[in-house]
Amino acid sequence: MEREAAELFEEFKELTASEFFRRNKQMLGFSGKIRSLTMVFHELITNSLDAAEEAGIQPEITIDLKRVDKDHYILKHTDNGPGIPEAFITRVYCTMFAGSKFRNIQSRGQQGLGCSGCVLLSQMTTGKPARVVSRYYEGEKLKGVEMTFKMDVKKNQGLILERKAVEVKSTGVSLELHFKDVSYSLSEQGAYEYIRRTVIANPHARIRFRDPTGHKFIFERATNEIPPLPKEVLPHPRGVTADDLIFMAKHTDKRRFRSLLTSSLSRMSTNRVNEIQKITGIDLNKRPKDMKWEEAEQIVDLFTRMDFMAPPTSGLIPIGKAQIEKGMREILNPEFVATTTRKPKTYRGGVAFVIEAGISYGGESGRPVGEQKRAEIMRFANRVPLTFDQGSCAITEGLKSIDWKRYGIRDLENAPITVFVNIVSTNVPYLSTGKQSIAPEPEILHEVRQATMKISRSLQKYLRAKKSAQEEAMRSKVFETYVPVILREAAVLAGKDVPEYDTILAKVTRKPKILGDAHDE
Amino acid sequence: MEREAAELFEEFKELTASEFFRRNKQMLGFSGKIRSLTMVFHELITNSLDAAEEAGIQPEITIDLKRVDKDHYILKHTDNGPGIPEAFITRVYCTMFAGSKFRNIQSRGQQGLGCSGCVLLSQMTTGKPARVVSRYYEGEKLKGVEMTFKMDVKKNQGLILERKAVEVKSTGVSLELHFKDVSYSLSEQGAYEYIRRTVIANPHARIRFRDPTGHKFIFERATNEIPPLPKEVLPHPRGVTADDLIFMAKHTDKRRFRSLLTSSLSRMSTNRVNEIQKITGIDLNKRPKDMKWEEAEQIVDLFTRMDFMAPPTSGLIPIGKAQIEKGMREILNPEFVATTTRKPKTYRGGVAFVIEAGISYGGESGRPVGEQKRAEIMRFANRVPLTFDQGSCAITEGLKSIDWKRYGIRDLENAPITVFVNIVSTNVPYLSTGKQSIAPEPEILHEVRQATMKISRSLQKYLRAKKSAQEEAMRSKVFETYVPVILREAAVLAGKDVPEYDTILAKVTRKPKILGDAHDE
Repeated sequence: MEREAAELFEEFKELTASEFFRRNKQMLGFSGKIRSLTMVFHELITNSLDAAEEAGIQPEITIDLKRVDKDHYILKHTDNGPGIPEAFITRVYCTMFAGSKFRNIQSRGQQGLGCSGCVLLSQMTTGKPARVVSRYYEGEKLKGVEMTFKMDVKKNQGLILERKAVEVKSTGVSLELHFKDVSYSLSEQGAYEYIRRTVIANPHARIRFRDPTGHKFIFERATNEIPPLPKEVLPHPRGVTADDLIFMAKHTDKRRFRSLLTSSLSRMSTNRVNEIQKITGIDLNKRPKDMKWEEAEQIVDLFTRMDFMAPPTSGLIPIGKAQIEKGMREILNPEFVATTTRKPKTYRGGVAFVIEAGISYGGESGRPVGEQKRAEIMRFANRVPLTFDQGSCAITEGLKSIDWKRYGIRDLENAPITVFVNIVSTNVPYLSTGKQSIAPEPEILHEVRQATMKISRSLQKYLRAKKSAQEEAMRSKVFETYVPVILREAAVLAGKDVPEYDTILAKVTRKPKILGDAHDE
Repeated sequence: MEREAAELFEEFKELTASEFFRRNKQMLGFSGKIRSLTMVFHELITNSLDAAEEAGIQPEITIDLKRVDKDHYILKHTDNGPGIPEAFITRVYCTMFAGSKFRNIQSRGQQGLGCSGCVLLSQMTTGKPARVVSRYYEGEKLKGVEMTFKMDVKKNQGLILERKAVEVKSTGVSLELHFKDVSYSLSEQGAYEYIRRTVIANPHARIRFRDPTGHKFIFERATNEIPPLPKEVLPHPRGVTADDLIFMAKHTDKRRFRSLLTSSLSRMSTNRVNEIQKITGIDLNKRPKDMKWEEAEQIVDLFTRMDFMAPPTSGLIPIGKAQIEKGMREILNPEFVATTTRKPKTYRGGVAFVIEAGISYGGESGRPVGEQKRAEIMRFANRVPLTFDQGSCAITEGLKSIDWKRYGIRDLENAPITVFVNIVSTNVPYLSTGKQSIAPEPEILHEVRQATMKISRSLQKYLRAKKSAQEEAMRSKVFETYVPVILREAAVLAGKDVPEYDTILAKVTRKPKILGDAHDE
């Protein structure tokens, strides 16, 4: 009855990344029809914005979503980025865990799964190949290539079906994918809302979208400023682990550990290295590969006790308070907006981040529920909308912990308010594969609270002023109604003519309104 | 200022699965100190139980967790399974996406990430190698090998440091791993509770656990029955997609599509295949590789309209109501238990599953919060405790939707009640990588509700009977207290002797208690 080990291992095998995710597509966020389509929009828009900005181009995206049949859609996604050199096209779209974003740089994508995940989903639901036109410069020459290909799941690579050179006039990528078992929805978690939020957080981008009913939406730029290009920054000593040091040591081309340290970490001068050598007694002239784990641990432990300058923040490019305000005004058309961008802070000892927040009131703020408006929380990471898994997210937790009554908001849930929060970091601590929620690190929670409380105070001032203006108006109205009556009756009693009172009365009662926006510095 | 494509692709590279998860360990459930350790326990226990059962052995696991230093632990995990042949040891522990569980069979693990994930975490936090002793039969001969190895993350494979043959007396695997940045906790999400719940759902397993304080827990078997071995079942036609058919066709060794269908799907007879050929007009004698996507879609579409017998349920091995009761009695020592195992149902048209549930009251049911007891929900999938992400889980949702007041439970939250729910399936629809919550498929929600409502009715009867017994006892007590007084006074009034009333009174008042357990069939 008992079976021996060899028999049980007969079926032992190894999967490729594509095979693995084909069996576990929910790990890519593809679960449910609405969410699946939103994730596709997310991956493609994210890639287009990153590519254009990296190349120094003002992003422009055109999306056309056609419904062919119930649950069967064709998505055409075109951008004006730098394009993809021919040799990389199938690697970008058909090889999972491949990408150019594995650096310590602030970018929207981080994982090398986005585009290839969309191609996988398309293929799994429709069996149709992907079609790509890439337009790119090779030296001075503008080239164009059109390809159709499938993903060879067992090999985790592309299988080109057709390929031809095409005439092109500008750079960019067009991608055409078929999808079934997905669904376009106007709900908060649907694809349309995803685009709307993207535009709020990216006022420098233009997005044209044609929805399945044929309706065309044009989200115009609210600003022409291209955000400065984030720079790759070296990791801060407080942000590395012993494992990171050993990993760097194993794969470096430096000859000595001391030069590895100064060239791979920020805030690490020769003086600092000498100090480390002196305190730990470790010979830092040794070859990187000879570094022992215990030594790496000693060094990392010392890092936590040394005083370092905060991480360089040149790598962090926040949207900026003025730009957030433009984005919110453009899309929400509110009565009132206040925004703030906090100074850079660090979490886990050495990873820099910035929290920015905006709050708007009235207009199209809040989400409509029947005739009512409910408060709406828009979460972003590096300008990317986070649509799902809000429950466990640091932004949600931070906002929930605020005592809104102190800011004159009795019932946040039922107020026409939109709260916008963006976290900017080279290393956003996501909680899950779907990249939809942020780990509640204490420093992040603190900054979310501080940012939101600051702009909430501005809103409170506005609401107070609005209320007292309304009361003032009410008093004026009473005055305006009764004064003429009194004047007339008094004139009759006195046996005189009724005096000309209109001009004087207007001067007394019609005070200029004191409404307006609060701006903090 | 604009940059060309080639420049942006200079950094393009491909990661191995190990490299990817090294950068994204939270995707393996390793986030937070307590959760990380619980996930390690989960992966190792799960693997040991699966291996022993597959080999037809009654599982016995010994775990020793030593605290070496603050946050630094050494974990020794030993099982009595069939062992791992030497050639597979580093593949099991150092190659991600490798495993023997990628079949359509009910097993606890499914993803080929468990053991290797633990080795990765150990290495990332301590730099220490893993030590394994594997004891296994090769033919008639019992072999033993001891190895220490590291994971070569860039290659996604093991790097053996030491290896020697050892004398052994029985089969099994012992694994020793170091961990830092983890934490042992007695909380609901901690490692101890994980073991306790495992034992409830696996009353045939014996687990010995020595905690960091040196305290030894021995969880004895509540039963000696080994659960029958689940059989691999062919997928049901209603459970396959067009992509599945094309994938099978591409990788089969069958010559004709008709034999692929009959040999790869359950409930698929030659008659059935003829019927499919007739209705669709597709020539099923063609070679599998010539099957077109549109044809596969036509066939899958027809599957949804044909009448099939439900999927074979020989692949599903529930714990069974009697065994669940034994498990709950052994660990919770309750006043009352009711359990049920539902008949197999299917979700998404063709994936078979079974829901079983238990409810216990009193004793150590519920979770203690200070002096009070709160209701406790224990979720399981194929006997594996689900500890995190309860919010979005089908089991939680199903239970929340029950109107508990109808079952005599005014305030579930504050009752000394434990609710146990297990889903059994060859294909548990997990929501996330961490395998901690179950997709709320309508059929699963329905079954969770039905199972729980059934046992809740038994609990209601018990609580009613208990209440009326208490009232009865109260009345008896009143009777017992006053009758003698009346008798004595009456005797005095009548000038007679007080009669001997004890025996008669006892007969009238001390009714046998009607308390007991409800058993449903």
